[in-house]
Amino acid sequence: MDKEQFVINDFKNPFLGDDAAVVKDQVFSKDLFFEGTHFKREWMSLDEIGYKAMVVNFSDTIAMNAKPKFVLLGLGLPSSIKSSEILELNGGIKRACDEFGAKIIGGDTIKSDKIFISVSVIGELCSKPLLRSAVKNGDLIAYTGKLGSSLKTLNALLRTPKNGFRAGRKSRFFTPILRDKFLYKSAKFLNSAMDISDGLEQDLPKLCKSAKISYKFLKKPLKYELRSGEEYEVLFSFAPKNLAVIRKMAAKCRTKVKIIAKAVKGRCRNNVRKHHF
Amino acid sequence: MDKEQFVINDFKNPFLGDDAAVVKDQVFSKDLFFEGTHFKREWMSLDEIGYKAMVVNFSDTIAMNAKPKFVLLGLGLPSSIKSSEILELNGGIKRACDEFGAKIIGGDTIKSDKIFISVSVIGELCSKPLLRSAVKNGDLIAYTGKLGSSLKTLNALLRTPKNGFRAGRKSRFFTPILRDKFLYKSAKFLNSAMDISDGLEQDLPKLCKSAKISYKFLKKPLKYELRSGEEYEVLFSFAPKNLAVIRKMAAKCRTKVKIIAKAVKGRCRNNVRKHHF
Repeated sequence: MDKEQFVINDFKNPFLGDDAAVVKDQVFSKDLFFEGTHFKREWMSLDEIGYKAMVVNFSDTIAMNAKPKFVLLGLGLPSSIKSSEILELNGGIKRACDEFGAKIIGGDTIKSDKIFISVSVIGELCSKPLLRSAVKNGDLIAYTGKLGSSLKTLNALLRTPKNGFRAGRKSRFFTPILRDKFLYKSAKFLNSAMDISDGLEQDLPKLCKSAKISYKFLKKPLKYELRSGEEYEVLFSFAPKNLAVIRKMAAKCRTKVKIIAKAVKGRCRNNVRKHHF
Repeated sequence: MDKEQFVINDFKNPFLGDDAAVVKDQVFSKDLFFEGTHFKREWMSLDEIGYKAMVVNFSDTIAMNAKPKFVLLGLGLPSSIKSSEILELNGGIKRACDEFGAKIIGGDTIKSDKIFISVSVIGELCSKPLLRSAVKNGDLIAYTGKLGSSLKTLNALLRTPKNGFRAGRKSRFFTPILRDKFLYKSAKFLNSAMDISDGLEQDLPKLCKSAKISYKFLKKPLKYELRSGEEYEVLFSFAPKNLAVIRKMAAKCRTKVKIIAKAVKGRCRNNVRKHHF
């Protein structure tokens, strides 16, 4: 049983199904970031853990074409954690908030065996929300940046966990890079967007299924390109007539854009096994 | 070290310090509800756990004089949990949402050794927010309902955990009763309010400290009255001239009101040991 999908289905309502829920000019999203499930202490510093927990949440807000404004922060901390460690974790959290202009306005802190961070973000829409369901037949489908480094780092860490800190610190796995500037600039020329958190082979079918449409790859993607999750690049679609202006904006923001597929009529199937629990 | 206070101090900002953060006409709050820390499986049914996790959060929103509108729900579920158990938990969650007119608009579900529920509530202010800092010198301080049953139940459960289900199910410990009707009706005659979650001996000093004021008991409270947490009755203050109208409204809502103290000038001390972790 896919418990996440089971819960989503049980709470079915028109707000669910995107990176964030849209209510008037606001978007609301929530993500949980858990030791053991999403990170290991030996892999990352507490500053990196705090920073990543926040930006992966901001990533959802940004993919909707909204700016993260307010944050509710839930922390689970082990009894044994030192003040200096809490300050380091908080340091990463604050750094991310400062960078994206968000304010922490409330939260809760409790004792927990493992560290966990529960983040709720309240965002303000810049203009129209970019919904997954708005992919149109004939749209070009593209993503920002380069995919693969996150999975490569994860595999290296799984092989030699103790060497976590020796892995290249520039990997997206440690420090995701969000494409907020490109997204806000180009939003009016896009039809849909979402962030790549589970990997292209999961997220592309998700995008198209929402829109009751299918896709055709222009060229078969590479294994790392397909399977690398936690990339937080933006997957988006747009009418072919907007290609030139999108390329121009991408160049202005120094953001690479790779066109990978075309939206076509049909029913989208996702045969990839998900990591159920 | 009180880690919760340490975290609050480190994130110090003008939004913190009340049951919920006020931004324009909205209030935002978040609470974590954890197996082991806040409840034990043998004490309560999953339906009761789901219901309580929600209403203790709505309690914060209501104490601010706001209506809970939207909920972001984070669930941690063990791998071994059955579909029927998830449905029972969700049943309690939905029941609470229906009762208070709130909608679940998003969330996250992950694997966790123990059940946890992270709830963020977005509320809409009915009129002015009821802030803790607004207690005025000379105010009468009162609470709704009757305090003590929650601690009595907790003590009974701690003595004989296996007998959890034999304890009286009407205890506030299992099913908190919120005073939303009374609060919304009387809000304009109140100066301040908060809910009683940690017990009167913790919460009354909290209220007065926020307002940089002290208090004097009219009559020494009983031990159970002082120490019983998780009551979710409303602690509030008001100018003595409003006493008659407040009594009238309380009678209309069939809500007992007990006046316990008077706000006086001075520095409020809280010498009660908190349960640090």
